[in-house]
Amino acid sequence: MLKSETSFVVRYAETDQMGIVHHSNYPIWFEAGRTDFIKTMGMTYSQMEAQGILLPLIELKCSFKSAARYEDEVVIVTSIKQFTYTRIVFYYEVYRKGSGTLLAMGETSHAWTTRELKPVNLKKHSPEIYQLLYMAYEQSQ
Amino acid sequence: MLKSETSFVVRYAETDQMGIVHHSNYPIWFEAGRTDFIKTMGMTYSQMEAQGILLPLIELKCSFKSAARYEDEVVIVTSIKQFTYTRIVFYYEVYRKGSGTLLAMGETSHAWTTRELKPVNLKKHSPEIYQLLYMAYEQSQ
Amino acid sequence: MLKSETSFVVRYAETDQMGIVHHSNYPIWFEAGRTDFIKTMGMTYSQMEAQGILLPLIELKCSFKSAARYEDEVVIVTSIKQFTYTRIVFYYEVYRKGSGTLLAMGETSHAWTTRELKPVNLKKHSPEIYQLLYMAYEQSQ
Amino acid sequence: MLKSETSFVVRYAETDQMGIVHHSNYPIWFEAGRTDFIKTMGMTYSQMEAQGILLPLIELKCSFKSAARYEDEVVIVTSIKQFTYTRIVFYYEVYRKGSGTLLAMGETSHAWTTRELKPVNLKKHSPEIYQLLYMAYEQSQ
Repeated sequence: MLKSETSFVVRYAETDQMGIVHHSNYPIWFEAGRTDFIKTMGMTYSQMEAQGILLPLIELKCSFKSAARYEDEVVIVTSIKQFTYTRIVFYYEVYRKGSGTLLAMGETSHAWTTRELKPVNLKKHSPEIYQLLYMAYEQSQ
Repeated sequence: MLKSETSFVVRYAETDQMGIVHHSNYPIWFEAGRTDFIKTMGMTYSQMEAQGILLPLIELKCSFKSAARYEDEVVIVTSIKQFTYTRIVFYYEVYRKGSGTLLAMGETSHAWTTRELKPVNLKKHSPEIYQLLYMAYEQSQ
Repeated sequence: MLKSETSFVVRYAETDQMGIVHHSNYPIWFEAGRTDFIKTMGMTYSQMEAQGILLPLIELKCSFKSAARYEDEVVIVTSIKQFTYTRIVFYYEVYRKGSGTLLAMGETSHAWTTRELKPVNLKKHSPEIYQLLYMAYEQSQ
Repeated sequence: MLKSETSFVVRYAETDQMGIVHHSNYPIWFEAGRTDFIKTMGMTYSQMEAQGILLPLIELKCSFKSAARYEDEVVIVTSIKQFTYTRIVFYYEVYRKGSGTLLAMGETSHAWTTRELKPVNLKKHSPEIYQLLYMAYEQSQ
């Protein structure tokens, strides 16, 4: 099953006055995971954008299980949950390294669009990108 | 039905290289809406925290309908969706002013906790805050 | 003397675990002030960008005098400090409303560039924008 | 000369509609550099805070030389520029890995304070932390 792992250290600016990581950072962490996942497939998200394919979010879900704190080393595990001609859904789990505690899990649903944010059928618009992602999706099952 | 409205202008820093508002800003906007909603009830979230009650997120959902852009004037409409002794769920709609376009809607689920993030029964811990919120919730139905 | 004032309420996400506003938010607040300053001149920064003129930062300075906190109402006072064919320097003061406490002051230096971030002589590239800003600058003295 | 190096990949959320990293991220990157610098001295900033010593900013300067972009691998080189009983100044350089292009340089001045943000003489308040930092400062010269 194809998964990518992304590790980094929690930044001070990511904390809030509760003393924990503010929840608005998790979508940003998911995105870092997504960037790495696509890279493991042999292309980069920058290259996809250069070919005129964008991936704006249409839905975001996140469940928070345990608080992350400043200087925690966290790891984002990313995989594909759903994949069609018009959409892709990524799934994420966030762990604290060392303890292995599950901090959060979430998913993001994206439409395939042009640079002008018009939805496209990925298979028709960019068959090579479709092929790469389809293979990654197959391996994710 | 009790709702609050929060208006502001989209900041440049909130955009990303797609030319639209990055999705991680919506949870921050929801929070600004939440702050105002609580204020309309006659107390502030700062006062709640001063009394030792925190509201960490346990779940976040957001659906993106249309892109917000730099200098757009947006309005967040906030209400209570669910309310119990141990949890509260807020519901949000984000509109572009003028056009009235619905940009996004979402909800956030929160646990009532102590400063040490231990869950509490709000009615037992802070009956006055419970009473205020319960009244707001009743008016939201 | 031409100055603009921008008011807003501090967001929870802007705090850090010291319990105060994280310093990285001040450049974002300065930018909100800049947006409003340009608007008072009769054009918008979005319109400038649409005409192919960007204003990337080349220098940022900020002095922090007193901490801002969640739910503080703050006001940004913005003016032009320097203005040439190739550069513009904005100056900012951040106050807490009510008390009038000075929280911070700072300045940002910007180059006039094309969309490709190539420096341009503003007077040659966009004489109308130059004229508007020159008048604002004169009034700032 | 004591310096620390901190590497990471630019996040999508860090870009703005100019297609480059928004300048407000550099203070956050500097902070990540500072975290690592302190770690190379044999303690963590979290431990300093646990001992009741905070390091709020009193001044921030940043010069932007070249734009950073999404998926760039950047490295922050951090060192101590000044060090006294009451203050510390860190200096930073940001490079794009690979090309070695200097993207930005900056400095942050900090006061030593208590948890209540009261300035303290570090040597009197926490002689061990003072000693560790003084040695690092000496090695930085």
